Amino acid sequence: MADYVFGVDIGGTTVKLGLFDVKGNVLDKWEIPTRTENGGADILPDIADSVRDKMREKSIGKEAVAGVGVGAPGPVDGNGIIHKAVNLGWGEMNLREELSRLLDGMRVEGGNDANVAALGEMWKGGGQGYRNLVAVTLGTGVGGGIIINGKILTGATGSGGEIGHIHVEDHESEACGCGNYGCLEEYASATGITRLANRRLRESDKDSVLRQGEVSAKTVFDAVKAGDALAVEIAERFGEYLGKGLAVIAGVVNPEIFVIGGGVSKAGEVLFEYIRPAFDRTVFHGCRDTKFALATLGNDAGIYGAAKMVLD
Amino acid sequence: MADYVFGVDIGGTTVKLGLFDVKGNVLDKWEIPTRTENGGADILPDIADSVRDKMREKSIGKEAVAGVGVGAPGPVDGNGIIHKAVNLGWGEMNLREELSRLLDGMRVEGGNDANVAALGEMWKGGGQGYRNLVAVTLGTGVGGGIIINGKILTGATGSGGEIGHIHVEDHESEACGCGNYGCLEEYASATGITRLANRRLRESDKDSVLRQGEVSAKTVFDAVKAGDALAVEIAERFGEYLGKGLAVIAGVVNPEIFVIGGGVSKAGEVLFEYIRPAFDRTVFHGCRDTKFALATLGNDAGIYGAAKMVLD
Repeated sequence: MADYVFGVDIGGTTVKLGLFDVKGNVLDKWEIPTRTENGGADILPDIADSVRDKMREKSIGKEAVAGVGVGAPGPVDGNGIIHKAVNLGWGEMNLREELSRLLDGMRVEGGNDANVAALGEMWKGGGQGYRNLVAVTLGTGVGGGIIINGKILTGATGSGGEIGHIHVEDHESEACGCGNYGCLEEYASATGITRLANRRLRESDKDSVLRQGEVSAKTVFDAVKAGDALAVEIAERFGEYLGKGLAVIAGVVNPEIFVIGGGVSKAGEVLFEYIRPAFDRTVFHGCRDTKFALATLGNDAGIYGAAKMVLD
Repeated sequence: MADYVFGVDIGGTTVKLGLFDVKGNVLDKWEIPTRTENGGADILPDIADSVRDKMREKSIGKEAVAGVGVGAPGPVDGNGIIHKAVNLGWGEMNLREELSRLLDGMRVEGGNDANVAALGEMWKGGGQGYRNLVAVTLGTGVGGGIIINGKILTGATGSGGEIGHIHVEDHESEACGCGNYGCLEEYASATGITRLANRRLRESDKDSVLRQGEVSAKTVFDAVKAGDALAVEIAERFGEYLGKGLAVIAGVVNPEIFVIGGGVSKAGEVLFEYIRPAFDRTVFHGCRDTKFALATLGNDAGIYGAAKMVLD
């Protein structure tokens, strides 16, 4: 029986690594830089070296390790093949086979980073105790991960849970990063909230604390908490889009719970006050009891979920 | 090894039954009335009798039967519990256990009828060869069933794939049957298309063959094929709603294929000409290659899928 498992979360600038016991207790946690030069050719060898170094340091033999789970920023299909990770310089690659080869045949599982983080939140975070959940990451963009019966919903081409790009607005003049118009991400990400705020500040001549200094998702929700009327209007628009978007997702996959994470979620439970009205108004009645919770693992969700992939 | 499997599809007026070999060839097919009086208390006993009669007729012993799969019109959770089937008079009931008890412990699997039909289309219908599909039934209402890695996506409360009630229009004055406003079903069902048509006929003073006689989804698409300009406008509105709705669903579950069935689908591939423009315009680029096909099993999809549930 294996005693240990590694979880690896590859980001654009750093790779996070974690050593866990099979119950999910983190025993060690560290980072290495992501070397994206040369089409990212060094990334997997660096990870393999780092895993081997850690095993040597802790005197852990190969047979004591269940495997290495890896989350990466790109669509990863059910065979562990990543189809283009722009931030890493990678084209199509079999993550599972490549890293396994570099680790002398050790078991490797690979997944999309947002999906893997969702699994982490189910295992040890805000979604503990649930087997059907949708994790929503409100960061620079909007990411998502869907867990059905305890497993990641990968989708046909690894795009399962790409909820940042569901269409929620027909009348949008600015393009989303993906090229489409009116994606959820344009209203519910940190960047999106800032954009909504700047728009509203231009449209309105209402006084607001937001007129002093730089506007961000954080300053908007700080102002909401301080009772700023214009900030409340902005939060209402954000909540209208996100609430309606999540209601659609609920009708499609009928999760037990939404787990909301990412930088914007630092605003706390106040978010739910703005999301729930549109959610409750538009959701299918069979999904009306869907719960909402905040993510709790922060940037560690990825290494937890990556480790969990190996244990399933 | 079992040689046979039964598939049962419970409808509001008739129960369809099928006897299959385990490869999915239908050996016999018949119907019995659905007796909804007394809170539907006779429905399962009638089914059990009918299954037993057929086994006697064909001299099939219990050990030769893999089991009985049942599709029912209501949300069925992962434990085979149906939570209210209004059309049958049922409250909450364990479909799996109840019918198994009536069949001397024979294996029974239960699922929601739309989900089960989706499985049938995957097994022997328009979705053959695929393991990740969304079946869309455009009938009196809009139903849906989602298959992920060959299995029904049931959801937390059996509402997985209830895509008829995803919110697609903010400015709707007429309520959907579910009580909400702006559900997909209000625009993409047979009833919805008729409603769109009657609205457009009132708004416009354009000449149209639709001004003669009764308007229905069928007359609309017949007129589209005959080149009627007003009918084309109606089909465009239908396609705009359905295309956008399916694009959202694609971004969430990333299926390989949409399989379109139900009465409206009798219009044929012309439907795709109206669905694809909005789909292509709004879908996440990773899902742009999602295929579209027509369902092929018609009213038999339910018995096929019910049988398949038992074989998985």
